[in-house]
Amino acid sequence: MSTNPPPAFKPFTLALIQLGQIGSDKAKNLTHAKDMILKAATGNSGSKKPDLIVLPECFNSPYGHVHFPNYAETILYRPGEPYDISKSQSESVKMLSEAAKEAKTWIIGGSIPERSTAESDAEFFNTTTVYSPNGNLVAMHRKVHLFDIDIPGKIKFKESETLTGGGSLNHFDTEFARIGLGICYDIRFPEMTMIAARKGAHIMIYPGAFNLTTGPLHWELLQRARAVDNQIFISMCSPARDMTAGYHAWGHSMLVDPMGEVVAQTEHNEDIVYAVVDPQIFSSARAGIPVTTQRRFDVYSEVQEV
Amino acid sequence: MSTNPPPAFKPFTLALIQLGQIGSDKAKNLTHAKDMILKAATGNSGSKKPDLIVLPECFNSPYGHVHFPNYAETILYRPGEPYDISKSQSESVKMLSEAAKEAKTWIIGGSIPERSTAESDAEFFNTTTVYSPNGNLVAMHRKVHLFDIDIPGKIKFKESETLTGGGSLNHFDTEFARIGLGICYDIRFPEMTMIAARKGAHIMIYPGAFNLTTGPLHWELLQRARAVDNQIFISMCSPARDMTAGYHAWGHSMLVDPMGEVVAQTEHNEDIVYAVVDPQIFSSARAGIPVTTQRRFDVYSEVQEV
Repeated sequence: MSTNPPPAFKPFTLALIQLGQIGSDKAKNLTHAKDMILKAATGNSGSKKPDLIVLPECFNSPYGHVHFPNYAETILYRPGEPYDISKSQSESVKMLSEAAKEAKTWIIGGSIPERSTAESDAEFFNTTTVYSPNGNLVAMHRKVHLFDIDIPGKIKFKESETLTGGGSLNHFDTEFARIGLGICYDIRFPEMTMIAARKGAHIMIYPGAFNLTTGPLHWELLQRARAVDNQIFISMCSPARDMTAGYHAWGHSMLVDPMGEVVAQTEHNEDIVYAVVDPQIFSSARAGIPVTTQRRFDVYSEVQEV
Repeated sequence: MSTNPPPAFKPFTLALIQLGQIGSDKAKNLTHAKDMILKAATGNSGSKKPDLIVLPECFNSPYGHVHFPNYAETILYRPGEPYDISKSQSESVKMLSEAAKEAKTWIIGGSIPERSTAESDAEFFNTTTVYSPNGNLVAMHRKVHLFDIDIPGKIKFKESETLTGGGSLNHFDTEFARIGLGICYDIRFPEMTMIAARKGAHIMIYPGAFNLTTGPLHWELLQRARAVDNQIFISMCSPARDMTAGYHAWGHSMLVDPMGEVVAQTEHNEDIVYAVVDPQIFSSARAGIPVTTQRRFDVYSEVQEV
């Protein structure tokens, strides 16, 4: 993870693909995801072509711990080392790289189940990969905090039955912003966002899939909280809701600005949310309510290991 | 600050006094505050007598940096040492001690401007004091983060023109809960609440006075955020709104539970908010969404200095 100064923050257009039609056929999932990326890349009326396109969590597989090992792909990416897409064993990585090149945009490839090696003793992760407009794989994030939740009579889910939590925090730089990465349940842990903000991230993006219990309770609240506390932009990109699937996603993909206002969002059907990420709000929030310079690290320790 | 185990968390009744009639006459302010404490102590229809009564920020003085030195009182409290109320130089401390004894309740005495010594080189603080039902002064918190805000055309305020920020985090134990203390703008800094929660606080209480700009933007959001992130109760107690005063308080004193739900609140007029603080919600939130046991201190450092 680089700790060099962040790039200058420039306005950019974000497109969140609230992907639907995620079924048991991975090839179909990948084809539909690529179609939607190319559709998103054309922009909508009144908005310019997006600079960054985001897919949701678990976009190539049904969401459920029994599915993860069956859909997992071997990526073998090492941060800071060049990655040869043509030799990748991951069909999802290949599709996303092609789509980024064709669309000529940055892509945050939602997340997919990943296996650490092709060997039988592999560990499994919930992993997002990032592509530059020339199709290079430039960053990866493995979900650090596993979604192990049990609200009696409402929702029970235990990712840790098959997955391992990632061991690093990750961001990447574009020509318009430094972008922090998290996945879904990661947003419940303020430390990740605090550290990303301290390292100069202008926006933190979480592919995610809250459900019909935690969605109405906390989906918007957590994004607004992270945004206001850290005075950065926050965005979460959800799959569309499919009541025939085993897991019912909340939807409501959105962008929140550093004052905690929801800039753009959608409902629960398949949709593309376009939003302009405006550095002016970032600057005025920090000037008006100067919490970024008022912290009292003489009274409490910094959450970031320097 | 004690780091011994917290007391067992038992249900208790909280009364938040959203105090009005705070004018330039300190004696009148103190008389009215005491009257309201004794009124609050009788409970309302359907609620039992409160166990803990809270006053708002700056309850004995107009709120404004030019007023603080003129209204400041010398308290000379040292944590962990007995405090002789009969020898106190602070008339507000004496009133609050008497009120706690008469009401037979715990009192969080909102905040008052405090001077560190009676000497001319005194520093000034925005300070809350806490009283047991026998009238003892048992804890104090000096606002750590000073409210220096400038939202052009909306609100400008600079506490640091006359005040110094406190240098410690504080909580106290009752027979029903461990209670963390903060004042108003302190709530914008997540570290304070995170540390209180790590030290076993069941609730964090902030006397506070947001305004007509920051109130609608962030008053409820910040309380709900702190509550959900730390799975503790959060409460803020505001003065009533007085449009003839120099500072227009938002009001809306409230209690939020560990799932982020607003348990009780009021509008902006003088009022007393009664609410039961229920340990059952604390336990079920932590069992259902186990973030308190899932933190990854192997990936990021703990905010609390151990």
